[in-house]
Amino acid sequence: MKLAMSGALLKRLVERALKSVARRTTIPILKHIRIEVLPNGRVIVTGTDLDNWISIEAASDSAKVEQAGTTCIPGTLFGNVLKKLPDGEISIDASDGRQAVIKAGTAQFKIHILPAADFPEEKGLQSASVGFLIPADHLTQIEKLVSFAMSDEETRYYLNGVYLHLVDGDVVAVATNGHTLSRAVLKNADDADPLPAFRPPIIHRDTLKLFATIAEAAIGTDGVTVTVDEARICFEAGDLRVVSKLIDGEFPDYPRVIPANNQLICTIEREALVAAVERVRTISAERGRVIGLTLSDGELRLQVKASDGDGEDVVPCDWNGDEGFQIGANGKYLATILGTFTGDEITLAFGTPGDAMLITDAQDPSRIVILMPMRV
Amino acid sequence: MKLAMSGALLKRLVERALKSVARRTTIPILKHIRIEVLPNGRVIVTGTDLDNWISIEAASDSAKVEQAGTTCIPGTLFGNVLKKLPDGEISIDASDGRQAVIKAGTAQFKIHILPAADFPEEKGLQSASVGFLIPADHLTQIEKLVSFAMSDEETRYYLNGVYLHLVDGDVVAVATNGHTLSRAVLKNADDADPLPAFRPPIIHRDTLKLFATIAEAAIGTDGVTVTVDEARICFEAGDLRVVSKLIDGEFPDYPRVIPANNQLICTIEREALVAAVERVRTISAERGRVIGLTLSDGELRLQVKASDGDGEDVVPCDWNGDEGFQIGANGKYLATILGTFTGDEITLAFGTPGDAMLITDAQDPSRIVILMPMRV
Repeated sequence: MKLAMSGALLKRLVERALKSVARRTTIPILKHIRIEVLPNGRVIVTGTDLDNWISIEAASDSAKVEQAGTTCIPGTLFGNVLKKLPDGEISIDASDGRQAVIKAGTAQFKIHILPAADFPEEKGLQSASVGFLIPADHLTQIEKLVSFAMSDEETRYYLNGVYLHLVDGDVVAVATNGHTLSRAVLKNADDADPLPAFRPPIIHRDTLKLFATIAEAAIGTDGVTVTVDEARICFEAGDLRVVSKLIDGEFPDYPRVIPANNQLICTIEREALVAAVERVRTISAERGRVIGLTLSDGELRLQVKASDGDGEDVVPCDWNGDEGFQIGANGKYLATILGTFTGDEITLAFGTPGDAMLITDAQDPSRIVILMPMRV
Repeated sequence: MKLAMSGALLKRLVERALKSVARRTTIPILKHIRIEVLPNGRVIVTGTDLDNWISIEAASDSAKVEQAGTTCIPGTLFGNVLKKLPDGEISIDASDGRQAVIKAGTAQFKIHILPAADFPEEKGLQSASVGFLIPADHLTQIEKLVSFAMSDEETRYYLNGVYLHLVDGDVVAVATNGHTLSRAVLKNADDADPLPAFRPPIIHRDTLKLFATIAEAAIGTDGVTVTVDEARICFEAGDLRVVSKLIDGEFPDYPRVIPANNQLICTIEREALVAAVERVRTISAERGRVIGLTLSDGELRLQVKASDGDGEDVVPCDWNGDEGFQIGANGKYLATILGTFTGDEITLAFGTPGDAMLITDAQDPSRIVILMPMRV
């Protein structure tokens, strides 16, 4: 492999491929990225951690090719070197198969390489896969509105991701860790093609970390082409392609846990509630400290008790229930959940103090968050 | 103690006092700050780690005082609470001696307190101390130009700070860790009073961390009043007072190690050298990796060899020595040192490859940095 190309373009390709390069691994090849140069000047850079493959292509004629070929170069090192090289053209000569000689301006680097054949082959999708186009914004919404509720407990591996399924023609994204659950409906535009039926995937949390990169690559395109089969999901956006292993498990029958009879309604200004929650939480740095909520006519009182002292605050609200209704909520989850809403007002709906509470935005009833109560 | 005052003002006082509150300590009182309110509305907030005391005063009438007094409140917690309180007036009632009741707007906190008598008394300076006024900028210069060369090895405790002494009427600041040494002369302004003789202090690295706060407090004042005795140093700036324990040791006779016969001179553009050093260093993440420097007519070649590969770059320069003069330098120190200069050109002066190199800026010959060579 021997080529010359824009250093800035190569840096962009490598930075994206690095998003799925394994950093903590004992398998040397996984710390490498694969660089393929075609005779027509097309350049394809690939990184993988064996579960996620990320490939990014630069168009034909991106490189002046003296010798087409493929090589594997240590990813993080190569990325760091590219960041520091002077602007302008960069040449790479990996033709001796042992090292890549990289030149830019007065600088020259020699980096040991591994044979292209050592790079793990991408496990592609099966022919039985189903594909469809979604707006890039749907990935951003899944990440912002739903992913916080994923579990990180390895024993509950089937909750370590976001579940997607089709409901009434729209994709619905759900995540839960058993304490909280978030569900968002990603409306299929009226003028868009109807979405085909697909086997509902559970997208792994590591894949979710690539969503911002995928959405960015989709800027200026029609959207992201998603293809799913039983084991994998593929996202194609612009010059980027991500293939990821899905979680092989059964997502719980979550509609069962959505409270259907929470008749006690508190309607409250969101920002005032956020400020009060953050305020009373300062009294304790402990993760998961409970906030006691007491509802009375016209006000929600928040109270936290900790070893160093107590904090409380009061926020005006509308309340249709009994005076002095009390329930406990995990302060950290409550703060996180409130931060994912954007409307001026939100609604907290309660059943008994032992029932899950339902948090919704009157402007967007399709978004549902559930929070399990805690003992005060 | 019972008072009401501006929450913003109290927050500023507490944030500054927190700079010297011990965070990792098993002595509970050291996690507290002391708040004293005088009948005239003056408020004094103090923090200490037993080596450094920092006190900040708000002028008379800063507080509406219902009951003057002193209390000790957990510092970090109180600071966090103040950050989250709504804007406006805040009231504190610590009159029961067990807890401080803090109110602002709808929020209320109760924080456990400790008796004022538990707070360690400031160990003041002796009457034999000497005081003088310096511009706040001198503290900033000591921090920027000299402090990077301090040692952090506890066994060489006498190098764990910056040494100040008087040379020809100016304060000279020096730090060294045995590998590098930095010396800066802080010119006493021509129209300023001559500085009195003082016992040269070694200011501890923890005190150096407070220099930015002291310099900030001196904005809009005549400068910083420094008072020194055998054991302590005091800085007074605006409403701030810092008293710190000095390092009790003998600073080495450093002029002895400043090379006097480095006749081989390389004059080089500073920014180009910085870029080349940063560039070749990317090849190895290892701390202290040596950069090989080779000097020839008109160019300095930098080379780094590491397990993953090699990097090199060339920077144009003026050179009065033999062709192919070679010396090794610690890459991390070299990068740090170059970052503390600001001029367009710097001068590297060499003796033999085994001698220390001298780094200076032709525009400011009073600033001297020494770097010991490494074997390439």
